[in-house]
Amino acid sequence: MLPRLTTAQAPLTRDVEVLDEHGAVQTIQIPAERNLTVYVDKRELVTLMTLGAHPEWLVLGWLRNQRLVAGIDEVESVTVDWEVGSAAVRTRRGIDRIEERTARRVVTTGCGQGSVFGALMDEVAGLRLPAASLDQATLYGVLEAMRKQDSTYKSAGSVHGCALLRGSELLLFVEDVGRHNAIDTIAGWMWMQGIDAAAAPADGAPYVFYTTGRLTSEMVIKSAQMGVALVVSRSGITQMGHQIANELGLCTIGRALNRRFLCYSGRERLRWQPDLAVPPPVPGA
Amino acid sequence: MLPRLTTAQAPLTRDVEVLDEHGAVQTIQIPAERNLTVYVDKRELVTLMTLGAHPEWLVLGWLRNQRLVAGIDEVESVTVDWEVGSAAVRTRRGIDRIEERTARRVVTTGCGQGSVFGALMDEVAGLRLPAASLDQATLYGVLEAMRKQDSTYKSAGSVHGCALLRGSELLLFVEDVGRHNAIDTIAGWMWMQGIDAAAAPADGAPYVFYTTGRLTSEMVIKSAQMGVALVVSRSGITQMGHQIANELGLCTIGRALNRRFLCYSGRERLRWQPDLAVPPPVPGA
Repeated sequence: MLPRLTTAQAPLTRDVEVLDEHGAVQTIQIPAERNLTVYVDKRELVTLMTLGAHPEWLVLGWLRNQRLVAGIDEVESVTVDWEVGSAAVRTRRGIDRIEERTARRVVTTGCGQGSVFGALMDEVAGLRLPAASLDQATLYGVLEAMRKQDSTYKSAGSVHGCALLRGSELLLFVEDVGRHNAIDTIAGWMWMQGIDAAAAPADGAPYVFYTTGRLTSEMVIKSAQMGVALVVSRSGITQMGHQIANELGLCTIGRALNRRFLCYSGRERLRWQPDLAVPPPVPGA
Repeated sequence: MLPRLTTAQAPLTRDVEVLDEHGAVQTIQIPAERNLTVYVDKRELVTLMTLGAHPEWLVLGWLRNQRLVAGIDEVESVTVDWEVGSAAVRTRRGIDRIEERTARRVVTTGCGQGSVFGALMDEVAGLRLPAASLDQATLYGVLEAMRKQDSTYKSAGSVHGCALLRGSELLLFVEDVGRHNAIDTIAGWMWMQGIDAAAAPADGAPYVFYTTGRLTSEMVIKSAQMGVALVVSRSGITQMGHQIANELGLCTIGRALNRRFLCYSGRERLRWQPDLAVPPPVPGA
């Protein structure tokens, strides 16, 4: 039984007039950034700052990744109204001990973050990942899929992209002013689609997360919460991200661009094909 | 009357072993990332995730930018103990209505964020900035100072840098896994130094903030809170950052690299010298 969702629309970029170094006027696009206050059963929980592409999935994924809602069937509806910047969530049976569970705060790391509740950290130890693995050819396919995506999403700059793939097939690409929003949006979408990455058979194509941003503790934890054991980034990793990924046996791959990458953790999930690492010959050379 | 601060030390990088695309082992450095739980008068307030270079200034600046403490003389001591990841703050007279003032939460935008209390947004309208301005030559001096700094701070990657300058003179450069931490650390240092940027005379060299990350609402607000009217970034701006900077008359300059930049807001604070914008001749050409 899926929740009813609105499909609130709002422009994702805005034209602004700027002056360049010659003092000449230019009109450029900047990404939108909207405040979205989440109410659960009329109780105000949090204000998210978001680009606003998929606010309903974002709210669902936020509730999921905060572990405030255990199953999507607990949610009756998500109603987003951009006029007032509100997302009204109705649950079927209320949320147990909501006061207590939203009390502690952790301000998480740097680039593309947000706030996660303290209980989240306690839960990491209990997460179990599927036996997913990836070969180097498929990893290169992931990077190629993202390279093509790059060329379209950069019009306004200053956003992060996150993607969910199955093998090298792109399932969903989400951009937001914050990576934590992008990954929460993917989590919400997976819930609506009924995708359970943790239960995917080991012999099928694995689920892979891609992010343009750093592999922070929050990114690693959220991936694990969604049962995705392979995370790829164009950027690097932080110590806490590294440590938690090691504890979980989650495969983190960073500095991934063209045919280069570094595998930071979970190396047993990656099947090297070093022949592929050699750069292809230059056409016509 | 300044607070007593510990000077807690901890390594800023950690060596980790990774595998590259050939399957070859490399040892690389990644930035440290530590949890630091802040207790004020024995009451737990928040857990910050930080690189850990200057935890005492970070905590002071966090208290300042959250507007939990109005004057540094209200703080008796900050005691950081990395063994347990704690920062114990003692105030001289307690903090009024601390329960109420830490109740609402805003999860702020994307890259380099954190959590600010809801009251922060309400306060923006009341901020007043000094009549500071900058000429293009000094702006280029800022970029040159930061370019030199860049070459040293990148050993481990995945950190953001923030700096406070006076004209093009670098006063303090701070890096952290989160920009919000870096700017809070600068705020704490300014407090300890007794620097009041808002009260600086208009005919002196202006205070300038530099950040490697995006000009988000949080960055703009924190700059304004510290009385710094000129903010420069290598990166772009978000809509909320743009809007608030416009409201405050704060000068935001982004995409600033070498001799190029874009002025997004507060253009009356920048004195163009377009002759300087022409790239210098290539040596030997």
